[in-house]
Amino acid sequence: MQSGILNINLLNSPEGPRITKEAMLKQHARVIWMCGLSGAGKSTLAILLDKQLSDRGYISQIIDGDMVRSGLNKGLGFSHEDRLENLRRVAEVAKLFVGCGVITIVSFISPTYNARSMAKGVLGEPDFIEVYVNAPLEICEKRDTKGLYKLARNGKIRDFTGIDSPFEPPENPAVEINTGILTVEESAMKLLNFVLPLVGYKKQL
Amino acid sequence: MQSGILNINLLNSPEGPRITKEAMLKQHARVIWMCGLSGAGKSTLAILLDKQLSDRGYISQIIDGDMVRSGLNKGLGFSHEDRLENLRRVAEVAKLFVGCGVITIVSFISPTYNARSMAKGVLGEPDFIEVYVNAPLEICEKRDTKGLYKLARNGKIRDFTGIDSPFEPPENPAVEINTGILTVEESAMKLLNFVLPLVGYKKQL
Repeated sequence: MQSGILNINLLNSPEGPRITKEAMLKQHARVIWMCGLSGAGKSTLAILLDKQLSDRGYISQIIDGDMVRSGLNKGLGFSHEDRLENLRRVAEVAKLFVGCGVITIVSFISPTYNARSMAKGVLGEPDFIEVYVNAPLEICEKRDTKGLYKLARNGKIRDFTGIDSPFEPPENPAVEINTGILTVEESAMKLLNFVLPLVGYKKQL
Repeated sequence: MQSGILNINLLNSPEGPRITKEAMLKQHARVIWMCGLSGAGKSTLAILLDKQLSDRGYISQIIDGDMVRSGLNKGLGFSHEDRLENLRRVAEVAKLFVGCGVITIVSFISPTYNARSMAKGVLGEPDFIEVYVNAPLEICEKRDTKGLYKLARNGKIRDFTGIDSPFEPPENPAVEINTGILTVEESAMKLLNFVLPLVGYKKQL
């Protein structure tokens, strides 16, 4: 069986398959990268966006920071170094998904400029859409959906973003969703209305 | 913004979104896991299968062992431990893709029973379809598509499968493609004919 030349030519031109797949799916793939404090509502918005896109015939995929910690990123902790490696892998996986024409919804604290800049570097600027899910620390801590703020305040977990690890708000996000002011429905609608033009309108698949 | 309960219920039931997405894509997602020696033709068959599926309206994605080494698995080497971690991550990513309804084509030497058993464990038996791309070492070494066998024989790279690292042939693969005997076209056709019933026939997307 001959081999080699075929591999190299096709494997080195990921653009080809992506364009074909986007055309088949009738959508433009983008990475909707949602950053923000724990409890700001990233996962909730990710799920609602995925559902609303699906209802409109779009194919999307959620990559949730908490979820991949038990799979792809098993064994990584919350040190600065491990967080960056965590994020790097998520960005690489998101890159595979956009290469497949899929709208990729990342829900990931991604606390620092460096972290988000690395993700943008992996994905390329046109595909990396930075969404700031913004709620004040006081509100996130009051919600304390997963009980983690309490543990962090009691010193039972360390390096917790917003408590003893910094969160650097995006300076110029593509869109900001202020979940401290908007309701869930308003937040989800604002996000959807921002995303739809990016991924292209279409009829049902 | 309320949160929490919604997250947990939806995130813990990946079956829901998968069924929806498979229905939208009109296909069943499976992981076509191709193992075999370097030079056996895995990447070539992966590309051809992806293309042939695409021509029939299927959405599929290649995860190629060589390709992910420069991205997702950057920094990992060829020691036994690193190979397993390499494979574990590939299996986790493949799991995300089948969860999105996408037919996932893995091209990965995956040399040992243990390695493939770990992949099967991550993916679950119904989704893990083991394809043995089989060509004798002599033929693979003669082809030496990437010049790696020569380097391995000269001791310039170590732990090379088939030379100084073992390849344990699958005992009971779902299908075996003998690329030492079949032509490229015959090999690709045999693989496609095996895969189509698994992913379901359908009209163009």
